[in-house]
Amino acid sequence: MAKKAVTIKEVAEAAGVSRATVSAVLHGREWVSAETRDKVEQFLQQKQYQKHLLMNSLSRHFSKVIGVVIGNIRNPFNTEFISGLQEHLGKEGYFVLHHHTDESYESEVRALESLASYELGGYVVAPAQEGRPHDHIKKLIDEGKVLVSIGAIPDLETNAVDFDDDTANRNATDYLIQRGHTRIVCLAGAETSSFARHRIKGYVEGLMSHHLPIDESLIVRVGDSLTEGYRATIRILREYRPRPTAFLCFNDLIAMSVYQAAHELGIGIPTDLSVIGFDDCQLAAILGPPLTTVATYPVELARHAAEIIISIQQGNVAPGFIQRRTHPRLIERLSVSFPAPSARG
Amino acid sequence: MAKKAVTIKEVAEAAGVSRATVSAVLHGREWVSAETRDKVEQFLQQKQYQKHLLMNSLSRHFSKVIGVVIGNIRNPFNTEFISGLQEHLGKEGYFVLHHHTDESYESEVRALESLASYELGGYVVAPAQEGRPHDHIKKLIDEGKVLVSIGAIPDLETNAVDFDDDTANRNATDYLIQRGHTRIVCLAGAETSSFARHRIKGYVEGLMSHHLPIDESLIVRVGDSLTEGYRATIRILREYRPRPTAFLCFNDLIAMSVYQAAHELGIGIPTDLSVIGFDDCQLAAILGPPLTTVATYPVELARHAAEIIISIQQGNVAPGFIQRRTHPRLIERLSVSFPAPSARG
Repeated sequence: MAKKAVTIKEVAEAAGVSRATVSAVLHGREWVSAETRDKVEQFLQQKQYQKHLLMNSLSRHFSKVIGVVIGNIRNPFNTEFISGLQEHLGKEGYFVLHHHTDESYESEVRALESLASYELGGYVVAPAQEGRPHDHIKKLIDEGKVLVSIGAIPDLETNAVDFDDDTANRNATDYLIQRGHTRIVCLAGAETSSFARHRIKGYVEGLMSHHLPIDESLIVRVGDSLTEGYRATIRILREYRPRPTAFLCFNDLIAMSVYQAAHELGIGIPTDLSVIGFDDCQLAAILGPPLTTVATYPVELARHAAEIIISIQQGNVAPGFIQRRTHPRLIERLSVSFPAPSARG
Repeated sequence: MAKKAVTIKEVAEAAGVSRATVSAVLHGREWVSAETRDKVEQFLQQKQYQKHLLMNSLSRHFSKVIGVVIGNIRNPFNTEFISGLQEHLGKEGYFVLHHHTDESYESEVRALESLASYELGGYVVAPAQEGRPHDHIKKLIDEGKVLVSIGAIPDLETNAVDFDDDTANRNATDYLIQRGHTRIVCLAGAETSSFARHRIKGYVEGLMSHHLPIDESLIVRVGDSLTEGYRATIRILREYRPRPTAFLCFNDLIAMSVYQAAHELGIGIPTDLSVIGFDDCQLAAILGPPLTTVATYPVELARHAAEIIISIQQGNVAPGFIQRRTHPRLIERLSVSFPAPSARG
């Protein structure tokens, strides 16, 4: 009872190291240099603090509440990601709170500021927009918070989980071209989405590898909602001549909006129009017809994010940032066929 | 600078009234009795507290952070409800955090306990299970927290938003019977779901009103997931003879799992099997074929929940609990037809 419980923050500040490093010393991780270890141990001795009290305080410092800030809760990729995150973190006694920003940069900034006052144990953030300052994220990282970004952030070092969008969309484009499609719409995400930028890159590379021209009017930006996808598709199918024979969609939600527009106009999938989605959310397999799509494995991605958080909290990794990548794969179902002879370019 | 800021909690305790009542006195609401008003004003005078300082503290007491605890984030009803809640509360400067329990009672108890430490401004809870103690919810209400339940809780007075499940499912059953169906599966929710209990009641009443027998084997319980719905449907379609000609589903998610199973077995919707969903989530209209379903208007329900929270925080309502109800409506699309002649009972 005589000894005072010290916080890991005090030790970290006094020894001039990060909190993750203090945690690593206490857990006897091998990557810690002898010098750093001595510095931390020395400080503890000086102050007559007991290691077991500090070990207790570790669990207090690293709260097991994790805040998740994502864009659009109506996108099944996000709900499957959150489900996966909660499944993996829940098993280890964590509590996951989520907030969605509706893809608004301002909401994201406010959300992280609000969450900061709760002293959470970690953050998982899907940054809403590229090209806007990331000070609100950098601030948390600089404060030593455990933060995992969904998708790497240009010019900012952070833990991240992502997947190879470029290659995935290049392969999907190639798949369509091999089946005779040349007028392929790339229904891409918002101008500010880094995912959209990568996927457009893959689409363009796919066309170029077959020496096909790039028609900019076929790259159409839509936000992440059924309504926007639906409106854009109706317009394209009504106005573009010759009519495009295939749609490469930003995600499965957008692919569903293409289905909706095509059904309404009496355009058959895949007889008159081929469609490829992105993500392979649970619903993809049960659309009529089942959707050919690029699987991005949101639950596996979530498992990586959970493991990064747990490893860092347990001092189980060397300092520096961790990036984990999944490899998307095209799942062939029934929404792609050869274009009708009359439509072939 | 001389005057100390008092908390609304202190005033409420000293005057022996609820915090909502103190708020109402400060806002000059007319429903407060003269006696109560005097008691509160008197306390403030005694303590030489200034009203404007207390008004300031009001905004501190009633935090604008709202915690939402729902069952299954993969159910589109829930994501549309959360979207609606955030839209309506967001406009008023609120911040919405959500947590999903995967329909686990234990997770719900832990979630509300965890959230309680954050001093939130209010709670919206979809209680996971009927027939289990609601002490964790009662505790928050007893502490004067603003809490809105999705679905009324038997034996517990609380603010609630809900809809008339019984009538809705009775009407949907009637709709099927009028089209010649007599072997109708009621793919109901979990044993512990109060929504399921009401919807089964409506189904049974629908059959009885047409003097049709109740075949208990046609009432099949499934949890709120595509997988469970799919497995149950495969079993029913393979084993039950004569094969049922219609499925009345617990919600649209379950209806989608019926689509999946039927597609896989080569059973056509609606030619061989009619399907009715529940909720009318955005995806219902774009399934193949578009799903006939009972609209429950989750976004409108969310608006009601938001209005209850805001009204109470602003002291804009008399003490007591507020219940708001929406009226579901059958939306006719293309997933119901007359049963094939060979299948008619």
